Amino acid sequence: MELPAETLRDACVARRSNLAARLGGVTAVIPAGRPVPRNYPANPHWPFRASSHFLYLVGASIEDAVLVVHRGESTLCLPQATAEDALWHGAPPSMSHLAHGLGLGVAPLAELPALLKGRTVGALPPPDAQGQAALEALGPRAADAQVADAIIDLRLRHDAAAVGGLERAAEATVAAHRVGMAATRPGIPAWQVVGAMMADLAHRGMGTSYPPIVSPRGEVLHNHAHHDVLAAGDLLLADVGAETRGGWAGDVTRTWPVSGRFSKSQQAIYEVVLAAQAACIAECRPGTRYRHIHLTAARVIAQGLKDLGILRGDVDGLVADDVHALFFPHGIGHLIGLDVHDMEDLGDRAGYAPGRTRSDRFGLGYLRLDRDLEPGMAVTIEPGFYQVPALLEDPTRTAKAGDRLVRSRLAEFADVRGIRIEDDVLITSGGPRVLTEAAPKTVAEVEAAVGRG
Amino acid sequence: MELPAETLRDACVARRSNLAARLGGVTAVIPAGRPVPRNYPANPHWPFRASSHFLYLVGASIEDAVLVVHRGESTLCLPQATAEDALWHGAPPSMSHLAHGLGLGVAPLAELPALLKGRTVGALPPPDAQGQAALEALGPRAADAQVADAIIDLRLRHDAAAVGGLERAAEATVAAHRVGMAATRPGIPAWQVVGAMMADLAHRGMGTSYPPIVSPRGEVLHNHAHHDVLAAGDLLLADVGAETRGGWAGDVTRTWPVSGRFSKSQQAIYEVVLAAQAACIAECRPGTRYRHIHLTAARVIAQGLKDLGILRGDVDGLVADDVHALFFPHGIGHLIGLDVHDMEDLGDRAGYAPGRTRSDRFGLGYLRLDRDLEPGMAVTIEPGFYQVPALLEDPTRTAKAGDRLVRSRLAEFADVRGIRIEDDVLITSGGPRVLTEAAPKTVAEVEAAVGRG
Repeated sequence: MELPAETLRDACVARRSNLAARLGGVTAVIPAGRPVPRNYPANPHWPFRASSHFLYLVGASIEDAVLVVHRGESTLCLPQATAEDALWHGAPPSMSHLAHGLGLGVAPLAELPALLKGRTVGALPPPDAQGQAALEALGPRAADAQVADAIIDLRLRHDAAAVGGLERAAEATVAAHRVGMAATRPGIPAWQVVGAMMADLAHRGMGTSYPPIVSPRGEVLHNHAHHDVLAAGDLLLADVGAETRGGWAGDVTRTWPVSGRFSKSQQAIYEVVLAAQAACIAECRPGTRYRHIHLTAARVIAQGLKDLGILRGDVDGLVADDVHALFFPHGIGHLIGLDVHDMEDLGDRAGYAPGRTRSDRFGLGYLRLDRDLEPGMAVTIEPGFYQVPALLEDPTRTAKAGDRLVRSRLAEFADVRGIRIEDDVLITSGGPRVLTEAAPKTVAEVEAAVGRG
Repeated sequence: MELPAETLRDACVARRSNLAARLGGVTAVIPAGRPVPRNYPANPHWPFRASSHFLYLVGASIEDAVLVVHRGESTLCLPQATAEDALWHGAPPSMSHLAHGLGLGVAPLAELPALLKGRTVGALPPPDAQGQAALEALGPRAADAQVADAIIDLRLRHDAAAVGGLERAAEATVAAHRVGMAATRPGIPAWQVVGAMMADLAHRGMGTSYPPIVSPRGEVLHNHAHHDVLAAGDLLLADVGAETRGGWAGDVTRTWPVSGRFSKSQQAIYEVVLAAQAACIAECRPGTRYRHIHLTAARVIAQGLKDLGILRGDVDGLVADDVHALFFPHGIGHLIGLDVHDMEDLGDRAGYAPGRTRSDRFGLGYLRLDRDLEPGMAVTIEPGFYQVPALLEDPTRTAKAGDRLVRSRLAEFADVRGIRIEDDVLITSGGPRVLTEAAPKTVAEVEAAVGRG
């Protein structure tokens, strides 16, 4: 087990103290979770990664451990190592070594029920089913919601250590995208590009924070298959983010021409998406409601498609009727932190401010975040344009658009299957700080990075 | 979803037919399993990998699918795609496309209960808890053991397609070890070596078949931590195996000097382990009982340590009293195939021939395999030498050794914490075929591959 550096340990001490201050008299239980198996039960997925809540508060991934925070006193409950463990996994660090290295109290896991006895307990969800079962065995937990609200209030605004983690994730993510662009050429399967990007991350001791999407079929939004062979006329959409050794996520999408040169039709749509992203990033300031940013993207995309002759009619009307969403069916982004969709395990309680709920409008319902931005929040901004058959060929989806959708003109953009441009943006009191801005983005930058043109 | 190549499809057709022939009237249910989450529930581990039984019989990883084999008729039951799925994951392949591409019948998963009604059903275990729950819901399964025995009888001896998979895994594994050796230098943390090896695999579109062990503390047998910094006098133990895109496992261990030169004490012990491995590999012939090979390793190691003055007394007596196991506490190897410990999900039913059970002797109890070798089986041969404090400092463990353990002499080998040398061996009618023989192994080969000497 790798203990956190002293600066991270101190950050975690402060985080636990800040959590306790938000808990009132409630006792918070935060399980790390345990390794999950792959291909057969005894073969674990690797490396083990604790739940983000645990990682945020402890600074290390410790299998099966449970953190208890109560009135400013933190106790890490650890499973007992057996003689078998010592043979196969080495002698565990002593409790005093851990207590010093992590800056908290340490106790055997068997003492957890006694620690919680007579207290008002709330728990944060473990990432795995076994963890869930272990929690159920602890008995009634009246204060889950209070603990969730306290941790959300804490993790929403990133502290200096967190910003450092996001910066490292961003740097590696940008480097991987450059490598992916340079590795692209017609005739190779997409997995060779993924492989080059993964290799670049591996050299940094990193993996990915989510399953990479690297596909010439960018219109399949969650396309995790990588066997398609790249053709010279394709755009390659790559949505790939690093995860640092400390667990912080990067999340960047770039879309580049396999040949190294955008076609005219590809460039035209690309510029629309790029303009939408620029407009949205400019709005990433304290006080802006995130839904407003989403609607900005919708308007810029609707206007751009109107300018290209693909849509007709009044832009506000197009957006009000979700016509833009036929081409941009997802939300403009989400929180990012230790989770790529930060705190999504807590549902919309994290992403939506109290009193706000998901819209049932097609053009708004996929929005994962609707809070007023504050300094320290980090979000993605990721507008896109896609020609999804399941939308464009479904009369019930296109009915509202009517003749405002100009299919004859759209047909001239058949080589644009999917484009997305995504960056990670830290909100500061001075405005947006694009953590991933070094990734090639303009048409000229992207073409130069792919080369071969 | 990537369909298998025609040759693999045909191999899978033959495998299912061979399974059916072993089933009698029993209906076999083989679930693929489903993605497991990492850091939060909606973020899956990637890439999805079906259970090895499913992969062996279908040739592709299909989430939540269930294969039913009944009297030579195979039906793949698939979950129904929703409209949401089409938007986010693209239109699923049609049932007829799948039926042709996989060479079997296809039906909606909802029809599974009807397919099984009135039949004697046995199931192979899914890799995940959800799959287990889904199986329980199917009702009584009288024939699990029969289905397990039939699949064991099939997977024990690898067919040509399987051997091809093992060869590809071996080639990539060997290449990764060469890269790891070349990347080693004093002053870097172990994860930089792991990263270089992972990067080499990533370029091939591969990952690892099990969590890599790359550590200067080779005496910690299952050491998945990679933060130790390498010192010039260290040996680095690297147990790393590729997993091919088709799911086949490689499993190789090499131990090399960080400086590029073994010390005299390191070389002396290394030669003992190497001699043990050579003797064991020579015995990998049809008809040899695998436990006999384990005992050969025990004897060669005991003799070698006696020759070095670390042990005293009669070699057979040392082995009978498990004195060798103070330094070689694990088994000589295991089956290898789609699982790195092939079919370990079925327990000793796979590894132990009928009528044979695990010994409770310390020197034999960790042996994962005790069958008579047959052509087509693939096994690892991995003798080792370790100085494990949990063994050598435990008087109850060392009591039997008495003064046959010469601690004063052992102290001269303090720079040998752990050495293991492991290869993957295919049993052929003509004898052993070492699939991973291209990995540097002699002292001279290893020193040359590390370089810097």
